[in-house]
This record gives sequence, structure tokens and C-alpha cells, in this order.
Amino acid sequence: MQEKWNLTMLCDFYELTMANGYFRKGYQDKMTYFDLFFRRVPDGGGFAIAAGLEQLIAYVKDLHFGEEDIAYLAGRHMFDQDFLDYLRQFRFTGDIWAVPEGTPVFPGEPLVTVRAPAIQAQLVETYALLALNHQSLIATKANRVVRAAEGRAVMEFGARRAQGESGAVIGARAAYIGGCIGTATTLTDQLYGVPALGTMAHSWVQMFDTQYDAFWAYCETYPQNAVLLVDTYNTLKSGVPDAIRAFNDVLKPLGIKKCGIRLDSGDITYLSKEARRMLDEAGWTECTITVSNSLDEFLIRDLLVQGARVDAFGVGERMITAKSEPVFGGVYKLVAVEDQDGTITPKIKISENVAKITTPHYKKLYRFFGNDTGKAIADYLTIHDETVDDSAPLTIFDPDATWKKKTVYNFTAKELQVPVFRGGECVYVSPSLEEIRAYCAAQVDTLWDEVKRFDYPHKYYVDLSKKLWDVKHTLLEHDQ
Amino acid sequence: MQEKWNLTMLCDFYELTMANGYFRKGYQDKMTYFDLFFRRVPDGGGFAIAAGLEQLIAYVKDLHFGEEDIAYLAGRHMFDQDFLDYLRQFRFTGDIWAVPEGTPVFPGEPLVTVRAPAIQAQLVETYALLALNHQSLIATKANRVVRAAEGRAVMEFGARRAQGESGAVIGARAAYIGGCIGTATTLTDQLYGVPALGTMAHSWVQMFDTQYDAFWAYCETYPQNAVLLVDTYNTLKSGVPDAIRAFNDVLKPLGIKKCGIRLDSGDITYLSKEARRMLDEAGWTECTITVSNSLDEFLIRDLLVQGARVDAFGVGERMITAKSEPVFGGVYKLVAVEDQDGTITPKIKISENVAKITTPHYKKLYRFFGNDTGKAIADYLTIHDETVDDSAPLTIFDPDATWKKKTVYNFTAKELQVPVFRGGECVYVSPSLEEIRAYCAAQVDTLWDEVKRFDYPHKYYVDLSKKLWDVKHTLLEHDQ
Repeated sequence: MQEKWNLTMLCDFYELTMANGYFRKGYQDKMTYFDLFFRRVPDGGGFAIAAGLEQLIAYVKDLHFGEEDIAYLAGRHMFDQDFLDYLRQFRFTGDIWAVPEGTPVFPGEPLVTVRAPAIQAQLVETYALLALNHQSLIATKANRVVRAAEGRAVMEFGARRAQGESGAVIGARAAYIGGCIGTATTLTDQLYGVPALGTMAHSWVQMFDTQYDAFWAYCETYPQNAVLLVDTYNTLKSGVPDAIRAFNDVLKPLGIKKCGIRLDSGDITYLSKEARRMLDEAGWTECTITVSNSLDEFLIRDLLVQGARVDAFGVGERMITAKSEPVFGGVYKLVAVEDQDGTITPKIKISENVAKITTPHYKKLYRFFGNDTGKAIADYLTIHDETVDDSAPLTIFDPDATWKKKTVYNFTAKELQVPVFRGGECVYVSPSLEEIRAYCAAQVDTLWDEVKRFDYPHKYYVDLSKKLWDVKHTLLEHDQ
Repeated sequence: MQEKWNLTMLCDFYELTMANGYFRKGYQDKMTYFDLFFRRVPDGGGFAIAAGLEQLIAYVKDLHFGEEDIAYLAGRHMFDQDFLDYLRQFRFTGDIWAVPEGTPVFPGEPLVTVRAPAIQAQLVETYALLALNHQSLIATKANRVVRAAEGRAVMEFGARRAQGESGAVIGARAAYIGGCIGTATTLTDQLYGVPALGTMAHSWVQMFDTQYDAFWAYCETYPQNAVLLVDTYNTLKSGVPDAIRAFNDVLKPLGIKKCGIRLDSGDITYLSKEARRMLDEAGWTECTITVSNSLDEFLIRDLLVQGARVDAFGVGERMITAKSEPVFGGVYKLVAVEDQDGTITPKIKISENVAKITTPHYKKLYRFFGNDTGKAIADYLTIHDETVDDSAPLTIFDPDATWKKKTVYNFTAKELQVPVFRGGECVYVSPSLEEIRAYCAAQVDTLWDEVKRFDYPHKYYVDLSKKLWDVKHTLLEHDQ
């Protein structure tokens, strides 16, 4: 940003009109529980990658209204003076639990749970959704692209087509969590330590009298990092030959064998095979071939099936905007209220659209891992005060088709949410981005291949405990 | 942002590696010309709306490297020390011309032209593209949605699904340029004066003992702005009846007739017709009906064709991410270099993909308006020192099919680009956002309906002067 934004003001206006209303009606201290969850995985995938928690934490820590914010609100002539006075002291005093960044997650699971007085819990809605929706979208997409590349490097190249500054900078952070090895966006390296990568554009080649001069100059400047863009004029007729000549003239005398070319247009399969042959024949067997040009997971998979000789992929607009499905549909719903005596009353949001009905109550989220395989078997939602005994077999059932039962044996139940805020204090130490990225890769490894398929993946179990299912169905019967 | 970003660092890393290379080769002062243009209109539309210039101007004015930036770059161990020293004094000293925000634009036209020393012109690439691509994408989409609504209000409601903070905040600015009447995003109102709108979420209704209590409390708090969300339980059985009861009990005694309901789920056509009937029968004929729920231009058009009784549309994720095609493919290409004696040499980027071949040279962009109709007839690109005599008929031709000729009579030629920077100084006074929005609406009115169709629009002429066409084809013959 050119100016520093107070992100507290990045809220939907109705959160402020409701807040003023709660204040006027004496509801400002009514304790509420909200769940942040999503209903389907983008691109029809089998799972998503949770991301964005670090930004949410920074936002909650900084929650406040400055004098200029209060002056703006006063100018709208809709808010009571004592409410505006109250905002001066406004801070977050509640509790937050969340699934750590990098965790594979499934529809219907609370990625974040907020327990706070009504006004506070309501106010954080927009930013919590924005932060989680955006980064989970990009991390999920990046993980698909990375899996398609089957071990080859994927670099994030999309800033110029991103949806705004944070779309570029924070999007590249999320892409790194999803498994990319680096980004073209310098600021993301400076801020978050995501390795910034890049060598030359077509304009470098055009700036010199000849393509060879341009290649020679680049090799001479960066002998350790000479990746030459070979498609400005004609890839096979002049691009690859000029690159080989420059490698021979500059790198060979220095004893340097590592170098690279990049293809950014044309028939990548054909060009990469021919370029590989020409490079190998010239003795540049360690020269890598990077390709870019509107790639996504499907094009990368196709290139590899066709035998393209590619070592690294630069992926731009289709990853940084998640072009094929650019929305992660997380929602934030009231699931319970708590009386002053501590009694928790579950709340449900009915909808004519059955898929939009929420799972009520203050809950716990477990993942069951098989002790023999290490693989994730099922996720399991319970009421907050239930415990799961994983020393004995447990029979779980499909919440939409209760006759579909499954008994799990020899498993370990792991709680997925961790405490993040308690009484307004942050109690969570964020892992480093490297740790998050490694954790993500390890956790994706716990999923069966059938869940990781791009098309028609196996539906992973997210079941409710019998007690929780009973609460939900009692509310469904009575809250119409 | 929680922290202030130096957007100078929001560049692709290759711009810095190239800059260091240009510096080392003595090219840093070589004068270059770059054009920013796009190749196709998203969603197959007939035109786009240019937006983002204000953010680009602020960025260029602030272009600089701070000590912490130089320290970061030094830590990468790729840059020469004298280059890093040079960056300390780095400022923009060149010229920029641009099409004003809100202008309808067509593929192949330079929305921005930069004339600057090589390093400067190269460095601004990423941010210029990011700013123009993002906001032109959203302004173009919003304009489609607004046209589909046929005069009814369209409100931008998408922050929670936006791609990052600036996606939400700046995206809402662009949506306003495109014709929305306001936004849910409070910060966009505070920063840019885009009216922030909103009343209640489902959680407001759930927080009270009964839906009627919730509606009564809202009407009592905001009698002048009572828009009640009626679909939390059952829209027609309880939602609309409870709303009418609250209007009767609170607003009627106050003599208030203006109020509203909002539908957010279900069959909007049916529900809106029934709700309209119930409201009218109860005497609330001035009660407006707002609808939301995954709308876009096609759904809005269908709702209106089906006779839905809607006064206003709240449009979220499908507009703020331009979901159906979330990328505006602007590119930034070298078109000329200038010698120290002032000689300008045009440059072309050849591609195996014919559509990717650039139009070389430092150019001027004209729009021809018919003197009788006021309508836009054609756009016309010339070499920078050509003039167009609009006092006489002019024969223009299709640059791809030169036998297709058209003679224009009785027209006025208007230059579309305006000077923005001259010698590093900003010489442009940005209009207010209200002015940009009004200009956009007026300029879209100059387009024939055939160009404005959503599907298979008429292709608007963007022709080249004979001199410019000759330059391009001479380069095509020789630069292979």
C-alpha cells in the first residue's frame, strides 16, 4: 500500500450497523460462537489446503478504531454517540481456535472458531473470510499444480495478472505453502523469505543489436545464473543456437556447466524435445529447460504425458488467480450463544438449500490416522466436551446417509484445531513459512491417492458424533 | 496492509537482474518506449473499461529504493555494488501518456505508453500491469453487470471472497467506476468515497429470541434505513410476514414509507414476485426488494426476463473476482528505442502466435466520433508525428485484411491518451472518482448497442495508419 490501512475498517458496513444495534440493545457482551468453514473444494478437488491464519492473527492483534475512523463513522450519521465512544476502547477479548496453515481440510470443517462478545465476533467476519478464502484458494491451487509437476520445480510468476497488490504479494506466500519453490515477486521474498527468482524478459533480447549479444551479455553478467529466454525471434532456428553459442563462449571457459533456457511460447512439447536434443548434442546436458505460457495443472500433466523435456515450470495467471475457479467459498456462521452462567445454546442456520444448513454448536474437530499406515482415515466432529477414545474401535456414520457406517480400528485421533487467542491474548506461535510448507507436504502425504485425484476424487469422510448429529437434527425439527 | 509496503519492490525479480545488467553494459540511460495493451476482452465482450491509472500514478511518484531494500538486494549477492549505489538515487524521470480511467478501450490499443531510460521503463512493468489489469478487469465486469440490471441499482458485496485486501478495497473502487452505486466495504468508502452500504446478516436474526424481535429491533434502531433480511428461516411463511409486522409496528407510526427487504437464497424470481404481492397488499408499495446470492450479468438478465420484481442487486464473488474470466491479460512491450540524437527506432516482438505480434513504434491513439450521431466509429493508431485531418473524409483499412476498407465522413478525431508524466513530473490532475464514474457512463453511451452485446458483439474497428502499417510489415519481413 502507498498508505497504511487500518484493516479494522476492512469490514462489511453491515457489521457496523449490527454492532451499533447490539450495543443499543445491550447485546454487546453476549458471548457468541462463530465457525468459519467452506462447502466445496474448488475445481472439484478432493481436499483444500488451509492458509491465511498468520494474516488473521496480525489483524486480530491490531483490531482498533482510530480517531479518523470514528470521525468517518460519525459523518455517516447512523451511529449512536455512546457506541462511537465505546469503539475508542474496542479491542478483541475473545478466544480463537484454528487449523494450522498448510493442513489439508475438507468441506464442513471449522477452519477457525471464534468465541467472543457479539460485536467483536461479528466484526472480524469479513477479514477472517477474506484472509482464509484468498490464501486457501491459492495454496490449494498451487498444491494441485505442484502435484501435476511430479517433483519438478514450480515457480510462481503471476504478479502482473494478480487481483491487486496483496493478490500478488500474499498470493505468492500461499503458493509457496502449497509447494512452489519460489516466486517472481521480489517483495514476497523481502517480506516472507519466499525465494525470488527470474532472469530476463523479451525486452532484454530486443535491447541489444543481436540476440547473441543479449545472451552473451547476460552470461557475462550472471555466469552462475544464466537462464536465457530463447523465443523472442525463433526458438529453434536462432534462440537455442544463440544460447549454445553464448554458453560456449562465456560459461565453458569458466568451467560452468549449470545453466538454463526458458521457452515462453509455441508448442512446448515439440520445442522442449528439440531443444533438449540440441543442448545435449552440444554438450550442455546440465542445462535445464524451464517453460512458461499460461500453464496450469492440466496442461502440465498433458505436457508430461506427451514426453515434454521440462525441468521447471513457471506458472502465472492461472495459479495466482486460481483461474479455473477463482473463489474459495468460505462462510462464517453463528453456531452457538453462551449465557452468563456458561450455558451454551447451539444455533442453526436453516436454508431451503440443504447444502447450506450449518452444523450447530461449539465443536471439536478430530482427524483419525491409521496406526499401521499413517494415512488419514476420516475426520470427526464432536460437541466441545466430548472425548474420543482411540484405544478402542469406533463406529462412525455418514451424517447425510446414516445407514452408511464404518468402524475404525487401531487409529490415533488428533485434534486439528489449536488455541490461537485466549481472552484476547495470542497464545499461538506461528511456525516459520518453511515449516508450514514442509508440514503441508507431509500432511498431503497422509492422504490416499484416491483423495488426491484431480477428477472425481474419492469423498473423504467428515462425520459427526452421535451426540452432535442428535443436536443438529433436534434443531432442524424445531427451528423451522 | 498491517505494514506499509514499498511498492517499488513489488516488481518481478527479473526486472532487477535486467536493470543490473543494463547498468553494467552502460544501457541505463538508453531511452526506450513501452506500450501497455491487452489482446482480448474478458468474457468475449466487445470492449473493456480502462481503470487503475490513479494507483499507477501514486506508485510512479513514490518510486524509490530505501536502505532496507538495498540491504535486501545486497544480501542476494547478485548485484554489483555500483548498481546498488545507483539505486539510492533512483527516481522516475521519464514521460507517461495514458488513456483516462473510465474510457472504453479495445484490444491492441496502448492504454499506457512509457518513455524512459531502460532501467526505469523496465522496472515499472509489473506494477503498471498489476494496477491496470486488476482494475480494468473489475470495472469491465461491473459495467456488464450494471448494464444487465437495466437501470436498477447494483451494489458491490464481495470483500469476503476477494483475492486479498487490495482485491477487496481497490476492487470496489473499480466496480464503482464501472457503474455500481456503492459497496459493502467500509474502507473503500473511507478512502475513496464509494458509498458503503449494508444493514444486517443472518446472525442478527439468529441473535434475538424471535425473528420478529430482530426485525423490530432493527427498525427501531434504523427507521430511515430498515432493510430486513427475510430468508433466515422461511422467506414467505415467516420472513416477509414478520417484516411487514415490524414495518407496521415501528415505521408506520413514524410516517415512514421507505424501507426494504433482502432475499439471499431460494428461487429469487418466485420469491420476489410473491414478496412484492404481500408487501403491496399490506400497503408497503415503497418497500424495495434487494436480492443477492451468487449473481452475475447472466443471472440478472435471466431474472429480469422471468419478471422478477427486483429493485436492487447485491453482487459479490462473481464480480469482485470477475469469476467467469478472472484475468485481464494486459502486457507491456518494448515498441521503440531512441538514440541520443533523438532518432526513434521502432521495435517489434515477433511470435509464432500471430495474435501475439506487437504493433511497433511510438504512436498516437485516436477515436473517431460521428458528428451527427456522437457515436464512436473507429479507433486509429498512427506514428507519433502523424496528424489526422478530420475535416476531410478518411479511408481506413483492417490491418489484418487490408482489402476491407471503410471511408469515414463528417467525424471528429479525438486523441485518447493524455500526458501524465513529463520529465518525471506528474502533469495530470486526476478527476474525482465521481467524475470518472460519470465519464465512464457517458463514454459507454457513445458505443453502438451492437458493440455492447454480451454475446458475439460486433468487432469495433481499431485500424493502423498506412505509415504505421508499413513500418510494422517492414519489420515483420526483416526481423525474423
